[in-house]
Amino acid sequence: MMGLEEFEGLSPREIAEKIESMEIRGAADIARAGAYALNRSVKEYPGDDLEGLKAELESCAEMLRSTRPTAVSLKNAIEYVMHTGAEDTQELKEKIKKNSSEFVEKSLQAGDDIAEYGGKRINDGDVILTHCNSSMALGAIKYAWDEGKEISVIATESRPKKQGYITVRELSDHGVPVTLIVDSAVRYKMEEVDKVYVGADTIASNGAVINKIGTSQVALCAHESRVPVSVCAETYKFSRETAFGDLVEIEERDASEIADPEEFPGVQISNPVFDATPSEYIDSIITEEGVISPGGAYRIIKEMER
Amino acid sequence: MMGLEEFEGLSPREIAEKIESMEIRGAADIARAGAYALNRSVKEYPGDDLEGLKAELESCAEMLRSTRPTAVSLKNAIEYVMHTGAEDTQELKEKIKKNSSEFVEKSLQAGDDIAEYGGKRINDGDVILTHCNSSMALGAIKYAWDEGKEISVIATESRPKKQGYITVRELSDHGVPVTLIVDSAVRYKMEEVDKVYVGADTIASNGAVINKIGTSQVALCAHESRVPVSVCAETYKFSRETAFGDLVEIEERDASEIADPEEFPGVQISNPVFDATPSEYIDSIITEEGVISPGGAYRIIKEMER
Amino acid sequence: MMGLEEFEGLSPREIAEKIESMEIRGAADIARAGAYALNRSVKEYPGDDLEGLKAELESCAEMLRSTRPTAVSLKNAIEYVMHTGAEDTQELKEKIKKNSSEFVEKSLQAGDDIAEYGGKRINDGDVILTHCNSSMALGAIKYAWDEGKEISVIATESRPKKQGYITVRELSDHGVPVTLIVDSAVRYKMEEVDKVYVGADTIASNGAVINKIGTSQVALCAHESRVPVSVCAETYKFSRETAFGDLVEIEERDASEIADPEEFPGVQISNPVFDATPSEYIDSIITEEGVISPGGAYRIIKEMER
Amino acid sequence: MMGLEEFEGLSPREIAEKIESMEIRGAADIARAGAYALNRSVKEYPGDDLEGLKAELESCAEMLRSTRPTAVSLKNAIEYVMHTGAEDTQELKEKIKKNSSEFVEKSLQAGDDIAEYGGKRINDGDVILTHCNSSMALGAIKYAWDEGKEISVIATESRPKKQGYITVRELSDHGVPVTLIVDSAVRYKMEEVDKVYVGADTIASNGAVINKIGTSQVALCAHESRVPVSVCAETYKFSRETAFGDLVEIEERDASEIADPEEFPGVQISNPVFDATPSEYIDSIITEEGVISPGGAYRIIKEMER
Amino acid sequence: MMGLEEFEGLSPREIAEKIESMEIRGAADIARAGAYALNRSVKEYPGDDLEGLKAELESCAEMLRSTRPTAVSLKNAIEYVMHTGAEDTQELKEKIKKNSSEFVEKSLQAGDDIAEYGGKRINDGDVILTHCNSSMALGAIKYAWDEGKEISVIATESRPKKQGYITVRELSDHGVPVTLIVDSAVRYKMEEVDKVYVGADTIASNGAVINKIGTSQVALCAHESRVPVSVCAETYKFSRETAFGDLVEIEERDASEIADPEEFPGVQISNPVFDATPSEYIDSIITEEGVISPGGAYRIIKEMER
Amino acid sequence: MMGLEEFEGLSPREIAEKIESMEIRGAADIARAGAYALNRSVKEYPGDDLEGLKAELESCAEMLRSTRPTAVSLKNAIEYVMHTGAEDTQELKEKIKKNSSEFVEKSLQAGDDIAEYGGKRINDGDVILTHCNSSMALGAIKYAWDEGKEISVIATESRPKKQGYITVRELSDHGVPVTLIVDSAVRYKMEEVDKVYVGADTIASNGAVINKIGTSQVALCAHESRVPVSVCAETYKFSRETAFGDLVEIEERDASEIADPEEFPGVQISNPVFDATPSEYIDSIITEEGVISPGGAYRIIKEMER
Repeated sequence: MMGLEEFEGLSPREIAEKIESMEIRGAADIARAGAYALNRSVKEYPGDDLEGLKAELESCAEMLRSTRPTAVSLKNAIEYVMHTGAEDTQELKEKIKKNSSEFVEKSLQAGDDIAEYGGKRINDGDVILTHCNSSMALGAIKYAWDEGKEISVIATESRPKKQGYITVRELSDHGVPVTLIVDSAVRYKMEEVDKVYVGADTIASNGAVINKIGTSQVALCAHESRVPVSVCAETYKFSRETAFGDLVEIEERDASEIADPEEFPGVQISNPVFDATPSEYIDSIITEEGVISPGGAYRIIKEMER
Repeated sequence: MMGLEEFEGLSPREIAEKIESMEIRGAADIARAGAYALNRSVKEYPGDDLEGLKAELESCAEMLRSTRPTAVSLKNAIEYVMHTGAEDTQELKEKIKKNSSEFVEKSLQAGDDIAEYGGKRINDGDVILTHCNSSMALGAIKYAWDEGKEISVIATESRPKKQGYITVRELSDHGVPVTLIVDSAVRYKMEEVDKVYVGADTIASNGAVINKIGTSQVALCAHESRVPVSVCAETYKFSRETAFGDLVEIEERDASEIADPEEFPGVQISNPVFDATPSEYIDSIITEEGVISPGGAYRIIKEMER
Repeated sequence: MMGLEEFEGLSPREIAEKIESMEIRGAADIARAGAYALNRSVKEYPGDDLEGLKAELESCAEMLRSTRPTAVSLKNAIEYVMHTGAEDTQELKEKIKKNSSEFVEKSLQAGDDIAEYGGKRINDGDVILTHCNSSMALGAIKYAWDEGKEISVIATESRPKKQGYITVRELSDHGVPVTLIVDSAVRYKMEEVDKVYVGADTIASNGAVINKIGTSQVALCAHESRVPVSVCAETYKFSRETAFGDLVEIEERDASEIADPEEFPGVQISNPVFDATPSEYIDSIITEEGVISPGGAYRIIKEMER
Repeated sequence: MMGLEEFEGLSPREIAEKIESMEIRGAADIARAGAYALNRSVKEYPGDDLEGLKAELESCAEMLRSTRPTAVSLKNAIEYVMHTGAEDTQELKEKIKKNSSEFVEKSLQAGDDIAEYGGKRINDGDVILTHCNSSMALGAIKYAWDEGKEISVIATESRPKKQGYITVRELSDHGVPVTLIVDSAVRYKMEEVDKVYVGADTIASNGAVINKIGTSQVALCAHESRVPVSVCAETYKFSRETAFGDLVEIEERDASEIADPEEFPGVQISNPVFDATPSEYIDSIITEEGVISPGGAYRIIKEMER
Repeated sequence: MMGLEEFEGLSPREIAEKIESMEIRGAADIARAGAYALNRSVKEYPGDDLEGLKAELESCAEMLRSTRPTAVSLKNAIEYVMHTGAEDTQELKEKIKKNSSEFVEKSLQAGDDIAEYGGKRINDGDVILTHCNSSMALGAIKYAWDEGKEISVIATESRPKKQGYITVRELSDHGVPVTLIVDSAVRYKMEEVDKVYVGADTIASNGAVINKIGTSQVALCAHESRVPVSVCAETYKFSRETAFGDLVEIEERDASEIADPEEFPGVQISNPVFDATPSEYIDSIITEEGVISPGGAYRIIKEMER
Repeated sequence: MMGLEEFEGLSPREIAEKIESMEIRGAADIARAGAYALNRSVKEYPGDDLEGLKAELESCAEMLRSTRPTAVSLKNAIEYVMHTGAEDTQELKEKIKKNSSEFVEKSLQAGDDIAEYGGKRINDGDVILTHCNSSMALGAIKYAWDEGKEISVIATESRPKKQGYITVRELSDHGVPVTLIVDSAVRYKMEEVDKVYVGADTIASNGAVINKIGTSQVALCAHESRVPVSVCAETYKFSRETAFGDLVEIEERDASEIADPEEFPGVQISNPVFDATPSEYIDSIITEEGVISPGGAYRIIKEMER
């Protein structure tokens, strides 16, 4: 998780570029960076031409959205900030400023709440398995550790980008005993596991969880062994568009993340980044609004509308 | 698969060393190399002292066994070759020679038979998923291709040793269209898959299949999607010891195969090499004796005794 | 789906008769016909005696309800239209008129929305299996086709009434490639299927879907093969009564729909018309209010109350 | 179920003691007794010192809560009664009185509603299996019987306390044909069973049902045989705390309830009182607000907040 | 089932034609007719030229095989009859005669044994569901009825050929209470069913059962409801070819069996005749050699070889 | 397990009585006692009238069989002992004597072998759950303990006869840490369990295991949690009769074993003693012939015939 100060001084364009290059990454960081960028764009707007300001704002929003078209947290952050109803330039600037810091604050508070709710659900002695690198899931694990619970973690390396390396370092630095395994060892290790904690990129209105490739087979293995799966996710990761039929598109990234295609002439290399875990393999979704079953996703989306 | 000529001229000790260092690897190659080494060890034995020859033979067998204590194919090959009942030096030498070449021949024939039986079970248009690098599974796939069936293959990279690289090159060289994926993408890709073909290191008397780490979660994902799993394995991979209670021990290899431990101070790295797939996720085991259900494993073991 | 003009000129009694004889059939058509009939009954009421008018209205409602006592869409339509709070004859007539056309309009709009939401969830290249003849499910399929997606459909014949014949003609006329199969071939064909789309007669508060006999085994087969099942249903098919303990009664229709009983003396012929699909086999329910998981059914019912 | 008159004349402390000793037991009775005790404690408060009265009330509440710290119904009853916003002594007394009787009334009404909704869902000829002794589940069964349905019941003995004895006597006295079995015979008898009806101690926000030890394996056996499980529970058994991460702790009671530890030196005896049934094995939760799927638990909790 | 006298007087060619036109149908009748035809063909062979007789025999066998190329019972019957080792014309004629009547006798005896073993496994009061028209399954049901057990049967109509009509008439004539349903009503009716009894066309070496289209979804529905499925099949329905990799091809019959293609221009009609039920949904296979689990199929095949 | 010396001096009739009264109980003890009794009956036979001796023997066998008509081990023991082919009195006496001691010896050896094979399959650190009181299962557990493995056991009380009391005392006396639970706590405790070990009364030819009531739900709970179930059983518990269609009848014992019927007027009490665990929930059957999958049961029965 990045501190807000890390965005300080960056122009909206610079922020957009850092999101695109994945220098700024993780659904929460992207969302907060987007909120920050919008405020920055209006703050610096010179004149007091309302239409011009609105156009500027919309163009900034568009630039941000296009960096990661499938990132629902960014889309929701932009929507939150731009919901103003303002009628003059000054009011619009102030509303955007207010909304922007409100979003950032709420987002940080959500992280704290999820860490607490998720952490309380971890018992002394638990072995937690996690996949990829989710600040929400790790927040819950650290909360439990800080409460004095003797826990340990098994973390997958999460090919191709090996975000598992970040996870094991982060947990180890925090003092939590952690074991690194290859992604193929999940079912083998599941016998020792008490709970699975993962994050989410997007949650669909039917309760399906879109997250890092491999999450769905981790969840399947957990279900086969009666190990409950908890998904830690702020409400702005719930996708309103899915309620109206949009399917979450699974991004296919560059083959070279897996292997150098030139070394494998004639071989196709396929690199899907996410997969969808059906609700039947998820015990609980832990949001800042509370712990819900996946069946409650539509309700969260409807509440957000109000 | 190695040709026999590659063993030519190697001493039993050299063969043992190559097995240990995994220069000779793959259950079938190891078995044939062991059979070759035993013959070599008696052929070169100078005098005609029967007890001395027997001791030499036993010590060679022991040296071979200790290179890969959990390799059932090697153990079965040694047992096959050393079953002589010979009563003088000459007879023993001849019997060992005969048994040795018989084993090698049978082993090669078994490979051909399995390729045929397995290949016939692949339909035109099938998408086959395979894990790791099994010469038996690839033999069946190539057989189907050579019969003119339009098939394609999805191959996992099979961390940590990435034997999937060998697989995709081997298939691509053979002309078979093949796609490389990370191990985490198995469940995501399973929707496109018609059949799973894998090999086996050991088959237990209750029908469980011990194979490269990750096989069991591939099989679980296949079962979840009603995709049949075929295991291609010669009968000398069936373990008689498991019929008498031995559990197949899962080898834990060096952490450095996964990541450099020095870069991860305080982090444990666990590297199990195999896992066990329960019989309920296996549709068929394809042996040179025919296609059986996993429930028939005990029978194969009993037949081998005779 | 019938156009409204087809009801034009029919008296309430005639409409009731056509519903009973199944000349007007399909949950949506029945509902709209009911709404139309109620308006017609008040429009033609001569005097301005409020109590008389109310009695007339209630008697017309009763006549309609009795035609298909288990049709929740009809019951909900009548309730919608009759919710007036009117205090004089004129007001009542106007309210009924307004409610009646509002219901019809909303119902048609719901169909369009469901077609869109459902259609967006179909991918290029998908093979869709459908059972019986649901205008909602077909609407979604046609929407996807009209968007230029290359899809095809497998349709069951849906014994005993063979509504599948209507389905294949309707899709074929629309240009969609379609294959007709017997009901017993569903599991066999499921290997080729990407998604199942069906309609619903009634949705219970616990998320169970009551639909044409056979739907539940289609859904079971789909679940076995990890094929997602989408149910397309307007919110007025959700049954408030089930929230208060009513069980949806499964109508048993005349044996002669299956075979001539006289040809089978001594043989009982049983002809249940619907079955209940449990929520665990349903991925999504697509309503005009959005895409929900079956767990959200109670919420839809509660929202309707307001 | 106890009548209110049974609390008459008891002091708050006496009530607390009876709850602790389990003379007053059953989630509903405990809740009503708690509501009664709170009113009694303020009624008898001598002076008109507001702060003193509040302290008295809080201390009474604390005393009650400590008798059964995991009883969510008691906690919810106390919260209900103490939600007053009163600003002077008299107002507080009156509000407590009003809330207290309101809670009792609502609680009784809830029981009647659940009996009705649950009873309507039982068909003529049904064989119902029940576990332990739930007044809500038995209420539904008796309702169905009183409606003239020919049903019968299979009741487990429910070791260690054998509450099944109370169940079979209660049903037999009511005229309902009932069979007593040991807890181990549940799966064997499930072949004859049409529906399972049980109560609940606590319902978590993710839809898990915490109830008498053994409930979860009854539900598992029912699910294996496609027998629907209905849980009868008033809304005040839904735990708001679980929405914010609290896990329902499973009480471990005295070993001597199972066997005399002195007769088993060296043997540990473990006596967990509850277990958690995951939502996937539950067809419906029958509350006074209506029949919901377990996925609707969070909604019930949110509604209670308002 | 046909009596042998029905073949009397028919030439081999006539028999072949009747098999092809399905006048002679059912795996057992086909097999016996084939055995009869072979004997007839040698009996009538004029000279004593051994090679000529052999050629005649082989050509008759080929003619028979080509009538129903996928009928394993016919293939196995022919193999049984032609296994002679005879060295002169007379011996060959006698051996064929002996083998032919032996096969017929064994086949009839197998039917009796299966009826007995299968019938004993039916309990008083059982409701049996059957699909299509299997003389073996009906034999077991009638055996149970004749033993005085009060049973009843639910029979599917088995579209497209409606062999269920034959089944209900046959059972009704025998006195067994029987109910006819459409194929789509299987899951709905499964709640009342105690056991499923079906026949088999072919049993594969991995225990999969190939039978009339729809059998696999009947078995899936049974498994979902914990209803055991028994397959009644003589050992000559076990396919040795499948042990060596052959896949059982699923015959696709004429579209017009389902509907008149001319009435459905532009619509494809697909008419697969069989499907494969995986061994996991089969409780027992009842053969004349005894009751086995599907895992024992390979053993039966191996025993037949001896 | 009883020592043989405990039968010493008892007449055949006394042994029969002790079996009937369950003073001698447990499938192995019953079988050995039966073998002993047969020898005793011929040993004491006065004259040398062969027919008379045969009649005496048959009548003794009949008396023994009638004590526990469903005990397959007793039936198999009698069959084993009486298989003589003897042609004169002396020879018959000697053959019976020889067979009788052979059976006893083999039976004891089988127990040792099963303890060893089963014990080797238990790992250091395992938590084993067992149900009822099986000398075979406990033998395996003690073997593992004696090998120095740090294991512990969870034992159910096994209502109604509470054989779990014997189990916990026996294990505790042997030094094995053991915890007693009620039968309803099995699923709750399963999270801590690594393996389930149980015995068997009868094993059917399709691999189903008939054992103490409750075994099947223990196995179901184990399967749900991916905990492997091992059944320890000598080959003489495999029932040849089931291969020919006999169903294993589930004995219903006296209600008073559960509760005093007089205290529950109007209540039926049902006391089934065994249940059947389907093969899909059993990982391995451990016999003295080796570890098999349930699918191998028929083979064991066929081998016994030879």
